[in-house]
Amino acid sequence: MMFSERINRLSGSLIREILSLTQRPGVISFAGGLPAADVMPAFDFSQLPDSLRQYGPSEGESILREKIAAHAQQLGIQATADQVLILSGSQQALDLTAKLFIDPGTPILVEAPTYLAALQNFRLFGAEMHELALQPSGIDPAELAAKAKCHRPAFCYLIPTFQNPSGYCYDAATRQAVARTLDELALPLIEDEPYRELAYDKAERRPLCADLHTAPFIYCGSFSKTATPGLRVGYLVASPTLMPNLIKLKQAADLHTNRIGQWLLANWLDSPAYQEHILKTRAYYRQQRDIMLTALANHCGELATWDTPPGGLFIWARLNQQIDTRRLLQATMAQNVAFMPGEPFFATPVDAAGCIRLNFSHATADAVEQGIAIIKDALQQAFVNQKNCT
Amino acid sequence: MMFSERINRLSGSLIREILSLTQRPGVISFAGGLPAADVMPAFDFSQLPDSLRQYGPSEGESILREKIAAHAQQLGIQATADQVLILSGSQQALDLTAKLFIDPGTPILVEAPTYLAALQNFRLFGAEMHELALQPSGIDPAELAAKAKCHRPAFCYLIPTFQNPSGYCYDAATRQAVARTLDELALPLIEDEPYRELAYDKAERRPLCADLHTAPFIYCGSFSKTATPGLRVGYLVASPTLMPNLIKLKQAADLHTNRIGQWLLANWLDSPAYQEHILKTRAYYRQQRDIMLTALANHCGELATWDTPPGGLFIWARLNQQIDTRRLLQATMAQNVAFMPGEPFFATPVDAAGCIRLNFSHATADAVEQGIAIIKDALQQAFVNQKNCT
Repeated sequence: MMFSERINRLSGSLIREILSLTQRPGVISFAGGLPAADVMPAFDFSQLPDSLRQYGPSEGESILREKIAAHAQQLGIQATADQVLILSGSQQALDLTAKLFIDPGTPILVEAPTYLAALQNFRLFGAEMHELALQPSGIDPAELAAKAKCHRPAFCYLIPTFQNPSGYCYDAATRQAVARTLDELALPLIEDEPYRELAYDKAERRPLCADLHTAPFIYCGSFSKTATPGLRVGYLVASPTLMPNLIKLKQAADLHTNRIGQWLLANWLDSPAYQEHILKTRAYYRQQRDIMLTALANHCGELATWDTPPGGLFIWARLNQQIDTRRLLQATMAQNVAFMPGEPFFATPVDAAGCIRLNFSHATADAVEQGIAIIKDALQQAFVNQKNCT
Repeated sequence: MMFSERINRLSGSLIREILSLTQRPGVISFAGGLPAADVMPAFDFSQLPDSLRQYGPSEGESILREKIAAHAQQLGIQATADQVLILSGSQQALDLTAKLFIDPGTPILVEAPTYLAALQNFRLFGAEMHELALQPSGIDPAELAAKAKCHRPAFCYLIPTFQNPSGYCYDAATRQAVARTLDELALPLIEDEPYRELAYDKAERRPLCADLHTAPFIYCGSFSKTATPGLRVGYLVASPTLMPNLIKLKQAADLHTNRIGQWLLANWLDSPAYQEHILKTRAYYRQQRDIMLTALANHCGELATWDTPPGGLFIWARLNQQIDTRRLLQATMAQNVAFMPGEPFFATPVDAAGCIRLNFSHATADAVEQGIAIIKDALQQAFVNQKNCT
């Protein structure tokens, strides 16, 4: 039996492997990006129309497309409902993007670090990935221009708002400069924004796509963090030139997105409960974040540095020594504590990232205190071991 | 902007373009494969567990996987729940199959004619498709063996039961001979079976996968015809050797399938209403089929031949002259009658298929009578035109 060449590049989602380990009773997990179950809305199915049992349009339900277009316009993105494609979760935008742009060897630009499941998808299709260093204020527009001119990438994939894994949020000046640079290069932008509503502190959140005039774009949006992930409904908003191919690729992938989920979300976006829910979710996650920041400051102040993420689900801790954090995970898992090692978030293989990603949305305050203390002990031990080796 | 090379091979779904034309009021459509809305079950959401709002496993809900494995065992396929992967509709099996096996230039074997959206997917990934002629009794095992030895295909894609578009159903001897041949060649089989429960007359329906011993297989199943397509939940059952890659490909595509649909179907499969519903659906579609067969006999007996499909949703009419049926469609659409032209169901481009696919599940008896009469007129005119040209 012969598999395709791409299967040589197929990697499992480390995150999902770790998540299945963390299903064990008694494990304290800072690994996943699971929304807290407590803040998910309950849905009312009583008015569900019978007509939704039939096949639906590949593009998605008109009513939901219109509401998403209106929402995009509020964010500054000049888009009509025709530019909205409903997806089986925002992750599907990455599959369609890869199909649209990537042949084996196609150069693309990504942040370093970036969302690991995006890396997996782009790698699967054979992209040659070039990295843009990420600072708390964003990427460097000059590096973007230089790498674009050097490598001639097919697109640039960015997560400007409450980035995964870093929690960073591009500042206003960087957003404008990056948008200007993309326009000058006519370089397609894939802007991934699952976390934008999870905002805890004042931060610029204007989508880069809102300031593009000539560069084509795909803006990827999610309901998994503002409603519930189990529905598996996400969306993209794209330049008109990209839509015909994206719709055909969606048809080929799964015909269309489940209609019950689309209907629930179309109702939900208009309900008085929605804005209330967002505010409640933000308050809850802000508190969760602050609990973890306090625990980190109490235990790890001498071992690592971090920025306060103004939104999102993650704290990115930069360790004081450049250790292999996958080995650190083995040490903490022996004590039933999980986090995400930094290495898989980089497109270029790294032996020792010296960074870890900590999710703060899911664990109780007691578990955070206990888990961070265990990470501290493991870090101290790892630093000693490292020193003894060198 | 540079798209990937595969975009040159991306074609829209002709079926969906025709379907959108048939949304016009007053159009009689025999084009789609839409299940009749009247026979779809209503669902009860009242016991939906809150826990399903969270992210779920990529493989699918355990309870549904177990029920599908039990069902597969009843059909003779020796499979455990570990071999079941829940999909966002059965169409997704084709996307995952293409990713698993097809590089540009990879040879594969398909029936002639076959499901056009499968052709679109395999073509998108660059497959070099070789055809196996299809008779009412199935493909010819000797042709399968010869073409397999000549072309060294990565897999063979077959729809043995109530085939789309032909309505043919492989007989018992052909099923056994094809399975034996696949085993001898160790050639992977993709067996697509969305229509198996839509059985109206006695016909052999034992899956080929049930008789494979050495050849790897992917068995693709659907709930769109036995429940409702709007849920977008399908599944595959595969050889253990294929599962790890298929699960990773599913993760990369959309993380997992929507959980509400999975829960509804897991309940539905066990309910007393399910078997009743299948019987009711069969009775309804059998009657629909017979109405169309009568109208065809009344109007088109001198113009075409067809076999009585023992199941499924389609009659495949072989016209007495080898005309371009896409032009025939233009003529009938001018009178608001739609059907599926034969040409796109062939992997090898054909100028004039001389066959059309007629769906009988959806139109009323009056509409069938009226629509078939209009097709008759168009056929007579087309045959005259053809004679004048030659």
